[in-house]
Amino acid sequence: MKRLVNDGYDVVEEMLEGYAHANQKYVKLDEESQRVVVSNMMSDEPRVRVIVGGGSGHEPLFLGYVGKDFADAAVVGNINTSPAPDACYRSVKAVDSGKGCIFLYGNYSGDVMNFDMAVEMAEEEGIRVETVLVTDDVCSAKARENRRGIAGDVPVFKVAGSAAAKGYDLDKVTAVTQKANDSTYSMGVALSSSTLPVTGKEIFFMEDGDMEIGMGIHGEPGLERRKIDPADKVVDEIMTHILADAPLSKGDEVYVLLNGLGGLPVMDQYICYRRVFQILEEKGINIHRSEVGNYATSMDMIGMSVTLVKLDSELKELLDAPCDTPYYKL
Amino acid sequence: MKRLVNDGYDVVEEMLEGYAHANQKYVKLDEESQRVVVSNMMSDEPRVRVIVGGGSGHEPLFLGYVGKDFADAAVVGNINTSPAPDACYRSVKAVDSGKGCIFLYGNYSGDVMNFDMAVEMAEEEGIRVETVLVTDDVCSAKARENRRGIAGDVPVFKVAGSAAAKGYDLDKVTAVTQKANDSTYSMGVALSSSTLPVTGKEIFFMEDGDMEIGMGIHGEPGLERRKIDPADKVVDEIMTHILADAPLSKGDEVYVLLNGLGGLPVMDQYICYRRVFQILEEKGINIHRSEVGNYATSMDMIGMSVTLVKLDSELKELLDAPCDTPYYKL
Repeated sequence: MKRLVNDGYDVVEEMLEGYAHANQKYVKLDEESQRVVVSNMMSDEPRVRVIVGGGSGHEPLFLGYVGKDFADAAVVGNINTSPAPDACYRSVKAVDSGKGCIFLYGNYSGDVMNFDMAVEMAEEEGIRVETVLVTDDVCSAKARENRRGIAGDVPVFKVAGSAAAKGYDLDKVTAVTQKANDSTYSMGVALSSSTLPVTGKEIFFMEDGDMEIGMGIHGEPGLERRKIDPADKVVDEIMTHILADAPLSKGDEVYVLLNGLGGLPVMDQYICYRRVFQILEEKGINIHRSEVGNYATSMDMIGMSVTLVKLDSELKELLDAPCDTPYYKL
Repeated sequence: MKRLVNDGYDVVEEMLEGYAHANQKYVKLDEESQRVVVSNMMSDEPRVRVIVGGGSGHEPLFLGYVGKDFADAAVVGNINTSPAPDACYRSVKAVDSGKGCIFLYGNYSGDVMNFDMAVEMAEEEGIRVETVLVTDDVCSAKARENRRGIAGDVPVFKVAGSAAAKGYDLDKVTAVTQKANDSTYSMGVALSSSTLPVTGKEIFFMEDGDMEIGMGIHGEPGLERRKIDPADKVVDEIMTHILADAPLSKGDEVYVLLNGLGGLPVMDQYICYRRVFQILEEKGINIHRSEVGNYATSMDMIGMSVTLVKLDSELKELLDAPCDTPYYKL
């Protein structure tokens, strides 16, 4: 156990207290539900509101993207656990401005159940809430709709935030966000487990020196566990899977996210990015914009994922639109 | 060894290659020295140029702060090793615009030796180069001038970058940067070693479950090694040392940086920040602005440091001035 926490049962509340103090320019905790982080920078004009959320332990996902012209609220669950339906519902009440809301989260069954209950609760009060599930992990299932959501959350959320900021109505925000998700392809590798503060233990056992290609951010099984390969070989394997799935050809444009899972040094992230760049360059696929860093983590898990978004002019414009949040500034 | 690298001897070059590709909007590698990262966003007007640097392994320090109106160049050494004098000299040649340059780096003997040689080389060509050493680690020595530089690098560099961007001359940039350093107080804790890519081993042995209060970012000895305490107790101890050293009283204003050393989860960083906030609030010391995150790391080292900068109106204005770099945007 190499964590700096107090009582393991208090980690989420204490984190949120610290987060709200450190980022008071951007956010506050909702008074009725301390598990809802609300933007201080919402437009005065009525707009579609973008609400993201999921379990804790993936910071800066989800709360780090609440601010100006990105997400308007984040709903916060316990570690690796969906937020409660009440908190999801409360987030709608806290931000809706009469134009409806969109729920955006990774495709995990607990999240789907609880957010869907909140959709019903809101609709009973006449507030329309649409949902787009992020389903970017190419190796989690063959069919897009069964895939898990990992770091692809970030560009998909960004598209929604920009679309809402431009004043798109709820149908249009939903449609373009769904298109963003359907254009997003990710795959990762884990070299360690994360450590749970309550037990002080790893959530699964990983032999030192092993890695698991394709593992999910909660430790969901990947394709294969074996000794850690050189970075280039790991990236080659991940890119082979992504490019086999994504309909990308020479001349296409992509957005690239090389996401650190928490414990992987910045140095290693750029060594991996270097190889992603080489592969795309070799294939004549143009990189419109890249980001490298810890965008969607699993606490102290060592590992990374690669995300590609196949771009058209609409997605490009929305991905590049200005925004200002603690962990995303354009 | 839980790193994602290729040959351990190539890590710095491969990182720099990836970094330059991913951040081509901001930087390029100098053609003559591939160990100098140069801003693509320097003002066309002649200005004092701000050059930072040091060993690798502390990313996003130093290269992450090269861009617009912050650092103009970073000189990159091997892991935990000073950059070579040639590279330091070459950085001056790459960015000087006739108004002189300022070298800024943490106070380590290898860095001092090599950067000082470059100062002489530049001065032989009539280019004036001043130096401010960052000496913020309160527990590394009693006298300010003997202290090591840790995460305090970031606010001290920022002050210099803003002063240069405002068109201050070299004397004035140097004076205000020195004032910033002399107003900066830091102390850290480590819960693990970092891992060297070449050996695949930790740089020092730390028993699992132990921590060392006051340890330096290269593993320099701290005050005491013992079992990991609850976060609040660790922060209390760090803040006691910082506040015993810093001349802060009720009503004073500070900038706060809660810096993660690489492997500490974002969650734990905010739990620690929460306690810093409580202590300062209790003492009536006003937090002007706070930052929480991995600003100066030691690769995969698990740990954090707290930095306070005592502010006056000049430092406040310079710390808050706009800038745009891959890892620092205001």
